[in-house]
Amino acid sequence: MIKVLQIGLGPLGQKIGRYISERKGVTTIAAVDKNPQLIGQDFGSLCGLTASGFPVQESVASAIAAQKPDVAVLSTVSDMERITGQLEEIIKHGIPIVSTCEELSYPWECAPELANRIDEVAKANNVAVVATGVNPGFLMDSLPSFLTAVCQDVESVNINRYQDAQYRRIPFQQKIGAGLSLEDFEAKKKSGTLRHVGLTESMQLIANRMGWKLDKTEDIIEPVIAQEEIKTKDLTVAKGDALGVMQTGRAYVGDELKISLQFKAAIGVPESYDEIQIKGNPNINSKINGGVNGDVATCAITINAIPQILRSTPGLKTMADIPLVAFFS
Amino acid sequence: MIKVLQIGLGPLGQKIGRYISERKGVTTIAAVDKNPQLIGQDFGSLCGLTASGFPVQESVASAIAAQKPDVAVLSTVSDMERITGQLEEIIKHGIPIVSTCEELSYPWECAPELANRIDEVAKANNVAVVATGVNPGFLMDSLPSFLTAVCQDVESVNINRYQDAQYRRIPFQQKIGAGLSLEDFEAKKKSGTLRHVGLTESMQLIANRMGWKLDKTEDIIEPVIAQEEIKTKDLTVAKGDALGVMQTGRAYVGDELKISLQFKAAIGVPESYDEIQIKGNPNINSKINGGVNGDVATCAITINAIPQILRSTPGLKTMADIPLVAFFS
Repeated sequence: MIKVLQIGLGPLGQKIGRYISERKGVTTIAAVDKNPQLIGQDFGSLCGLTASGFPVQESVASAIAAQKPDVAVLSTVSDMERITGQLEEIIKHGIPIVSTCEELSYPWECAPELANRIDEVAKANNVAVVATGVNPGFLMDSLPSFLTAVCQDVESVNINRYQDAQYRRIPFQQKIGAGLSLEDFEAKKKSGTLRHVGLTESMQLIANRMGWKLDKTEDIIEPVIAQEEIKTKDLTVAKGDALGVMQTGRAYVGDELKISLQFKAAIGVPESYDEIQIKGNPNINSKINGGVNGDVATCAITINAIPQILRSTPGLKTMADIPLVAFFS
Repeated sequence: MIKVLQIGLGPLGQKIGRYISERKGVTTIAAVDKNPQLIGQDFGSLCGLTASGFPVQESVASAIAAQKPDVAVLSTVSDMERITGQLEEIIKHGIPIVSTCEELSYPWECAPELANRIDEVAKANNVAVVATGVNPGFLMDSLPSFLTAVCQDVESVNINRYQDAQYRRIPFQQKIGAGLSLEDFEAKKKSGTLRHVGLTESMQLIANRMGWKLDKTEDIIEPVIAQEEIKTKDLTVAKGDALGVMQTGRAYVGDELKISLQFKAAIGVPESYDEIQIKGNPNINSKINGGVNGDVATCAITINAIPQILRSTPGLKTMADIPLVAFFS
């Protein structure tokens, strides 16, 4: 039974807590959050489970005073700047970490100094650290990398993640800008709340594995525009307004486009799927029909990575460095 | 530049030799085969390359006398009985191994004593050993295992590898029994030359990762029977004769079918593809349209596993134990 310390108990952390409670091989034994409204609440009750008997604590030191966990699950922030100190605090207690921090999934290009610092501290304390999730962490980086295992040559990689937002929750539809005028879409884009974090990290992981030295990467956000009025049970989108978002990542070696990622989430996308197209010897055209449900997948892969981070050599790792992650009960 | 010792220079070993010569990061520096007709031949010339300047040798000891390789690629036999001694000889020279031996891909159920012996010798000599290939090694075991990484629960796994043999080489069509009467098909089946080795190993690898204790496995070979006369450019198959082979693997926990594998190679299969269907939370339905070319893929994945076996901890490993394999140039 692997003992888990959970840090970060927002909606994602709470869902991870519920998922851990369904497994035989892992159990949450302590929990931390900085939010004063959560501190002191019973962890189980907060997650919608039966009472666990231990409260959410303010600090790692107090949470682990009674019992040392085998691993920490860190689901707090998306950026390297803020995650680094949090990681260091946990690592110095000698606790390995699986995190959902998007930028941590491949930080060596965007934040090399912080990445090296985390790697050094992890090695000094003999623990391994990895960030994962459905995207970044799987669909657009480690899965396509693994598919190239059967290739004698790879020229380029193209990935499409297409999602029909029509049947998703209203907060998701709002997040992707569905129903906004193009002016409001642009304002939301400028505020940063439209951006999916991780396309650049995914491209850098693939490039690293293929041995490609990238000269340029792009990360472009555009509205998907309604060509006619569209009505769903939740909302009406006028012709010319936004149905959702298309985010495009492109990575070049010289002028050659080596990696392209399209992440489209909009109302009226005719088909949801995750597609990986590898041009090489042989070509590989892989498609997950219906796509992968991101809410379930990110929580599940975070838990599924736990046994493998415990088997990993020390340091800051990627999903392509640790032994193969798979479901376990 | 990783220095490779190649052992086993049949058609597969020769193709691996050609593929290694196309890569920047690996080079073959020595070669071994027991076949008296190959011993003494120039390795490069034998593979259809320019002369390499070194001959195929009879023994590992003589092949590595001048220069120690970083890794051995062993492509000789399919069974544990014969591969074990070959592995031990290489391991005792302190050389890690990537092998194409099918039964070695997951030997702990079918040959536990030999598996444990190899594991012990490998650990004692501080080297890692893995067997890989497209199948077993990837399509029906490590790839579906990796796809479950995004699952909170897995109930069952179903895999279809369907290949239209019509456009394949005539030796391949003969191998799968295309054009044989059902009596001749049955005789060929009894001779053992129809059987694809590895379905059971693939099921055992998946079960091990999912935490399923299997009570029964089946490996069934049946002819695909022509419902009417079929003519191709190579042959005519009469109504009632064999178009090819369907091999089915099934694995049960109690009476519950947990894993089913269908490997169909026959003339007139309407579509070639590799399909993985995971029933769980979420369901995952993945399909590689056109399928994966087995000849290219097995040679490629064997080479692609080399850097990862060098990064692995010592012992006998599976494709699900070593860090993620991917193409490298």
